[in-house]
Amino acid sequence: MALVVQKYGGTSVGSIERIKSVARRVVATKNQGNQVVVVLSAMSGETDRLIGLANEINAEHSPREHDVLVASGEQVSISLLAMAVESLGEKAISFLGSQVTIKTDSDHSRARIKDIDGSRMQDALAAGFIVVVAGFQGVDAEGDITTLGRGGSDTSAVAVATALSADVCEIYTDVDGVYTTDPNICSEARKLDKISYDEMLELASLGAKVLQNRSVEFAQKYGIPIHVRSSFSDTEGTIVCKEDESMEKAIVSGVAYNKNEAKVTICGIPDRPGIAAAIFSAIAKEGIVVDMIIQNTSAEGLTDLTFTVPKLDYDHALSALEKINQEIGAREINGDKNIAKVSIVGIGMRTHASVAARMFTVLSQENINIMMISTSEIKVSCVVAEKYTELAVRVLHQEFDLAKVTTNES
Amino acid sequence: MALVVQKYGGTSVGSIERIKSVARRVVATKNQGNQVVVVLSAMSGETDRLIGLANEINAEHSPREHDVLVASGEQVSISLLAMAVESLGEKAISFLGSQVTIKTDSDHSRARIKDIDGSRMQDALAAGFIVVVAGFQGVDAEGDITTLGRGGSDTSAVAVATALSADVCEIYTDVDGVYTTDPNICSEARKLDKISYDEMLELASLGAKVLQNRSVEFAQKYGIPIHVRSSFSDTEGTIVCKEDESMEKAIVSGVAYNKNEAKVTICGIPDRPGIAAAIFSAIAKEGIVVDMIIQNTSAEGLTDLTFTVPKLDYDHALSALEKINQEIGAREINGDKNIAKVSIVGIGMRTHASVAARMFTVLSQENINIMMISTSEIKVSCVVAEKYTELAVRVLHQEFDLAKVTTNES
Repeated sequence: MALVVQKYGGTSVGSIERIKSVARRVVATKNQGNQVVVVLSAMSGETDRLIGLANEINAEHSPREHDVLVASGEQVSISLLAMAVESLGEKAISFLGSQVTIKTDSDHSRARIKDIDGSRMQDALAAGFIVVVAGFQGVDAEGDITTLGRGGSDTSAVAVATALSADVCEIYTDVDGVYTTDPNICSEARKLDKISYDEMLELASLGAKVLQNRSVEFAQKYGIPIHVRSSFSDTEGTIVCKEDESMEKAIVSGVAYNKNEAKVTICGIPDRPGIAAAIFSAIAKEGIVVDMIIQNTSAEGLTDLTFTVPKLDYDHALSALEKINQEIGAREINGDKNIAKVSIVGIGMRTHASVAARMFTVLSQENINIMMISTSEIKVSCVVAEKYTELAVRVLHQEFDLAKVTTNES
Repeated sequence: MALVVQKYGGTSVGSIERIKSVARRVVATKNQGNQVVVVLSAMSGETDRLIGLANEINAEHSPREHDVLVASGEQVSISLLAMAVESLGEKAISFLGSQVTIKTDSDHSRARIKDIDGSRMQDALAAGFIVVVAGFQGVDAEGDITTLGRGGSDTSAVAVATALSADVCEIYTDVDGVYTTDPNICSEARKLDKISYDEMLELASLGAKVLQNRSVEFAQKYGIPIHVRSSFSDTEGTIVCKEDESMEKAIVSGVAYNKNEAKVTICGIPDRPGIAAAIFSAIAKEGIVVDMIIQNTSAEGLTDLTFTVPKLDYDHALSALEKINQEIGAREINGDKNIAKVSIVGIGMRTHASVAARMFTVLSQENINIMMISTSEIKVSCVVAEKYTELAVRVLHQEFDLAKVTTNES
C-alpha cells in the first residue's frame, strides 16, 4: 500500500463539475490500494474575488487581515471536495492549515513552512479516511493564519508529503508535464519523462510556470519525488527527482524564456567601494527584486552597471535611482523594457565545457545580439531583444537535439 | 471606560458600503472612550450561497464538512471589517471562533458554547485594538470547526460579552428594537424601552425574530444586558435585562403570533400507558420538533391527542403516524395547516389571575374560535384559524392597552 499525496490547483477545482471529477480520481486512487491525501487550492477566481473586495474596502489593508480573508478560499474548496468524496461512498475529512498543523513563520502573504505535525492526518488515514488538506495556508506561533504566496499550494503538498513520508507527491495541473520548452512557440517541444530537481529549479525560476520553486527545493531537501501531471487526462506526466544514471547523458534538458523583465543600466559611475551597495539598497528599499546583475571591469575609474528587474517595477526602479544619483554621481541612467531572457538548462553542462560557446554561436548565426550573459553550474542565460525570443528558443532547441529522446528518458 | 460588545447581522455587513458604515459606527464608539469588541455574521446571502454549492455537490453531506464550509463566511466578513476599521486610522484585529477560543460541544450545525477564553481579546483590547470576532462559529475539543445554528451570532456576542464581563451587549439588527407586537399588522405597536429576559424568551419563541433564544438565556444566566437596536439609525432601541421595579406594573408586555405551525389530531386512541410515548417517539425519530401538545381527559376509554409541528413537517408527520397506526389503533388521524398561534406575554400575569380569561373573552367577542390553549407562568397562547391572526393581534393589543406607555417604561 502506497501513500500518495495529490495536489490540485484552482482550475482543477474551479467548478462543481470539476470538483466531482477530482473526487472520482481521488477515490480511484484509493481503490487501487493507496492511502490518499489531497491538497487543494481555492476554486479558480476566488482568491482574486476576495482580494478585489479587500481593495475596495482598503487598498492598504494589513497583511494579517489579508491572510485571514484569502485563506477562506481553500476552506470552501476542501469542504466541498470532502462532500464530493462522501457522495461516492468513501469517508473523507478536511483539515485547515491550522488543524494539521502547518506551522509557518509570521511573514504574512509569503510565509515559510517550518514544521508539520502529521499525526492527525496519519490517524485519519489509518481510520480509512481520504484526507483533504487546505493548501497555501498555515498558522504561526501566535495562532494567526498565514499564507505562503501565489503557488504556495505546491509547497504545502510537498511539505505534507514529507511529513507523512509519502511515496510520491502528484501535482495535478493544466499541462501534462514538463516540456523541453514552451510548446506554444516551438512545435518540436517534447514532454520529459524525468528531470532532476536542480534542472527543474533552474527551469522554474527562468519562467516555466509549472511548479513553485520552493516546492522543488523542499522536495529536493527531503528526497520526495514529484509527479507533475494533467488533471484532465490519465497520461503519465514528468517525474521530478534526484539525478540518476540515466540522466547523465543529456547535456541540455530544456530551453526556457522570460519576457517579464526589463534592463536598467547605470553608466559612468565612479568605481569605488560602496557604490553597488548604495544602488541596490535603494532598489531593495522599494521592494523591487533584482534578477541578473552585470558589472564590467572599469576603465578610467568609471564603470557601467546593468541589472534586470520585473517589467512592472521598471519605472519605479528608475525613479528610485534618480533620487540617489546625487550620491552616486552616475553619468547616465537608462534602460530597456523590450528584452527577454533565454536560457538553456541541463545537468550535463557540468562536464561539457563547450555548451555556452555553442549557445552564443547559434544565436550569432541568427544575428541575435546578446546584451547580457549570466551562468550557473547548470544553466546559461542570455538577455536578447524581446522580438528574437521565439527564434532564439527554436534554434537552441534544435541545436541541442531536444526533440529527440536521449538516454535520460526511461 | 466601558467595554461594549456590538453584534452586526448579515444585512448590516451585506455590502462593501455597509461594512464601511459599520466601521464608522464602531470607531465612533471607541472614540467615545469605550473598548469595543465586534461580533459579525457572514455577509447576507453568503451562507445560502455556500449551502447551495454543498447541496449541488452532495445533498447528504456530513455535518462536519458543512460547518467547515459555512464558517468561511464569517472569516470573510471579519477580515473585511478589520480592514475597513484600519482605513479609518484605528488598529483592528480579527479572530475566528477557533482563535479566541470559543469552545463548543461537537454537535455540528447546532453546537452549544461551553467556554470562551477571553485572554487573547483582552490583550488586544489593552493594546488599543478594536477586536472583531467571527460569530456563529466555534471549535470543539478535537479542534474541529462547529457552528451554532441560524442566528447563532447573537449567542456568540452574548457569550463574548460574558467572557469579557462587558458592560453591555448591543445587537444591531434591521429593526430598531422590540415592539409590543408586529408593527406590520398593528399600526399601534409601540417600541419597548425595556423588557425582561423572561418576557423576551417567550416573545422570541413565539415568533418574534429579533433575538436568538439561546442568546437571551445566556444573557439572563450571566446578567448581561442586551441592547437591541438598529444598524441604520442612532435611536435607542430596547434594553433586555433583569426584571426591575419599574416593570412590575405591566400585566402584558407584548402580543406575538406564529403562522409557521400546523396542527395534527389523532382521534379515538385507546387511553392506556405507552400510547403517547409511541406517538412522540415516532415523530421524534423523524427529526420533527413538536411545540404544543394537548390531550383531553378520555371518554369511554378513548382519547384525542392534538399537537402542533412546523408547517414544513406536516406531511412528513402525518405519514409517520400512518405507519405506526397499526400499533396505536387510532380511529382517525387528521390535521389543519391553516392555523396560527397568538400569544400574550407579560411578567405581570404572575400576579393577575384574570389575564387568560380576558384574552378568551376578547377573542370570543370577535367570534374567533379557540382550537388549542397553552399557558406558562408569563404567557397564554391560543391556536386559532390562520385567517383571524391579524384581527386577534389587534384586539389583544388594544385590550391590554399596549399602545400606551405604562410605568415599565423608563
